[in-house]
Amino acid sequence: MRNKENIAMLGAGSWGTALAIVLADNGHEVCLWTKNENRVEEINEKHTNLQYLPEIQLPETIRASSSIETALRGTDLVVLAVPTKAIREVLQLIKSVRKEPFTAVHVSKGIEPDTLMRISEMIREELPEELCKDIVVLSGPSHAEEVSLRHPTTVTVSSDNIDAAEKVQDIFMNQHFRVYTNPDVIGVEIGGALKNIIALAAGISDGLGYGDNAKAALITRGLAEIARLGTKMGADPLTFSGLTGIGDLIVTCTSVHSRNWRAGNMLGKGQKLQDVLDNMGMVVEGVRTTRAARQLSLKYGVEMPLTEALYQVLFEGKDPKTAVDELMARMKTNEMESLVDIIDRNQEN
Amino acid sequence: MRNKENIAMLGAGSWGTALAIVLADNGHEVCLWTKNENRVEEINEKHTNLQYLPEIQLPETIRASSSIETALRGTDLVVLAVPTKAIREVLQLIKSVRKEPFTAVHVSKGIEPDTLMRISEMIREELPEELCKDIVVLSGPSHAEEVSLRHPTTVTVSSDNIDAAEKVQDIFMNQHFRVYTNPDVIGVEIGGALKNIIALAAGISDGLGYGDNAKAALITRGLAEIARLGTKMGADPLTFSGLTGIGDLIVTCTSVHSRNWRAGNMLGKGQKLQDVLDNMGMVVEGVRTTRAARQLSLKYGVEMPLTEALYQVLFEGKDPKTAVDELMARMKTNEMESLVDIIDRNQEN
Repeated sequence: MRNKENIAMLGAGSWGTALAIVLADNGHEVCLWTKNENRVEEINEKHTNLQYLPEIQLPETIRASSSIETALRGTDLVVLAVPTKAIREVLQLIKSVRKEPFTAVHVSKGIEPDTLMRISEMIREELPEELCKDIVVLSGPSHAEEVSLRHPTTVTVSSDNIDAAEKVQDIFMNQHFRVYTNPDVIGVEIGGALKNIIALAAGISDGLGYGDNAKAALITRGLAEIARLGTKMGADPLTFSGLTGIGDLIVTCTSVHSRNWRAGNMLGKGQKLQDVLDNMGMVVEGVRTTRAARQLSLKYGVEMPLTEALYQVLFEGKDPKTAVDELMARMKTNEMESLVDIIDRNQEN
Repeated sequence: MRNKENIAMLGAGSWGTALAIVLADNGHEVCLWTKNENRVEEINEKHTNLQYLPEIQLPETIRASSSIETALRGTDLVVLAVPTKAIREVLQLIKSVRKEPFTAVHVSKGIEPDTLMRISEMIREELPEELCKDIVVLSGPSHAEEVSLRHPTTVTVSSDNIDAAEKVQDIFMNQHFRVYTNPDVIGVEIGGALKNIIALAAGISDGLGYGDNAKAALITRGLAEIARLGTKMGADPLTFSGLTGIGDLIVTCTSVHSRNWRAGNMLGKGQKLQDVLDNMGMVVEGVRTTRAARQLSLKYGVEMPLTEALYQVLFEGKDPKTAVDELMARMKTNEMESLVDIIDRNQEN
């Protein structure tokens, strides 16, 4: 028998809601927190979240609240499922009302521009260790829509404290939702964040009508540059071959569910960035992450041609077609030269 | 200015024909060889190959012949674009009529069951070195349909003789068709052949209605087992992160153009293997490769759970749903354990 846990799910977007369903299916008590009063009422009374998961009937055991104090009360586990941009604000809210220690799980994918912090670093900066004992990241190839439909899904959890990761694994694991552990926090967070950049580029290529061959070339090249950067930052290069690397990249770059791909697709078809963002009505993490990744490439001295090209498209008005054409043409003639930095670094370790 | 070469393209299926277009676009003289007299007539008179590339008008400089002697006459470069199953027969035909030395390029993706030879090994066994000086493999993420439409495409060439690879690179390279070199022949051939197994499995998952999360998990797991086997066979593990590894895998597993994916899809929907093969009307290399890959996994003592599961579905009547469900559930709890063999081997080198 599994222990029943009390869990706060902060954020009632598509991913927070889908994960609440997983937890409710496993018999846990979940309180979904959102500032949106109408959504709280909808979840508590109609057991739906039509804006984010239009086809889904939520388990009735999922409660919602707009009070973070209520949501956090009596919980051991606090899941942060808000956009990267809102993380610090939510952490400060938690600190203002919560006194008992807890374990934090974050499921967002991004890097903070300027500070260049990963999300676990932001959490550690905001929350003292006596309040937040352990930080666990949960990431992997997982469209929320499919998780909410109980389609088979695999994700990875990672933490500096392997016991905390294994506890979270046990809480989320079920027949449809398979959870694996990986000790490489840096690799898991970097892979999850930076794949959104590649998804934007893949969407642009598709929007230009370039087809699957071009997209596969861009994804391959993109993964190589993520792995080069991540390894330089201290990640294990193998993580980029796993669920949170290739796995998440494939899902994000080839699925119509992916909002980063969709945003890129609109850019490729000639729309302006601001119009795209206005039309999406959801956060497109990759846009912000592109800015952060470019800063990281400069800081660590790692060449990231795809990130650079995308930065110029997003923020400097470069023509998307020119950018993609240049990326296809400018690869090194010997493909091993683009890949070999990864292993060099690995052999130093 | 590029030198004009005389080139024989043996095989007028979709890939041979698409590559003939690339070569003709580059100003080379190409003779397409096929035993099918009607196709020869269609290519020479109507400049189409409607069965394989229905939307395409071929350059008029492409000639076709059903005589291998005519096709080979005056050529320096002979491209083998026939299914793996037909390679030895074609090599023997070449040997019977051709006396002057030439360079062979092969563009097929498979492993010979029982002998467990890669295609370059089959060529070397059949053709003495004084006749076939160099053997070059050309592989990568490249649907023939898109290549024939001049959509941007990247491929890799590899050979034991880097000069031969660079010559082939130069002959095929153009603005749309980018060619890179990689010295790792084993990795390039193994990646190209074994990705068809993963494509069949991805198709089955889609046919079962399992969605993108499940497919990404299968592809990730599949690539790990290909890399484990390939590395044990002497490949450079980095090759599996390149165009002929991840790149080709992505294209094959996520595109409706892929006949291996399509075959798997029909299996997932409940059709029997023989009916699927009868309906396809094209060779499904992955079926034959699954048999060979399973033999390789036994020979090299490498665990390949996805290959094993697919073998049981294809040849032992196992239910596809049971096979996929077991694959999703049976991964090791710590995902690094599934990946780590790759790096172990690498560090020995």
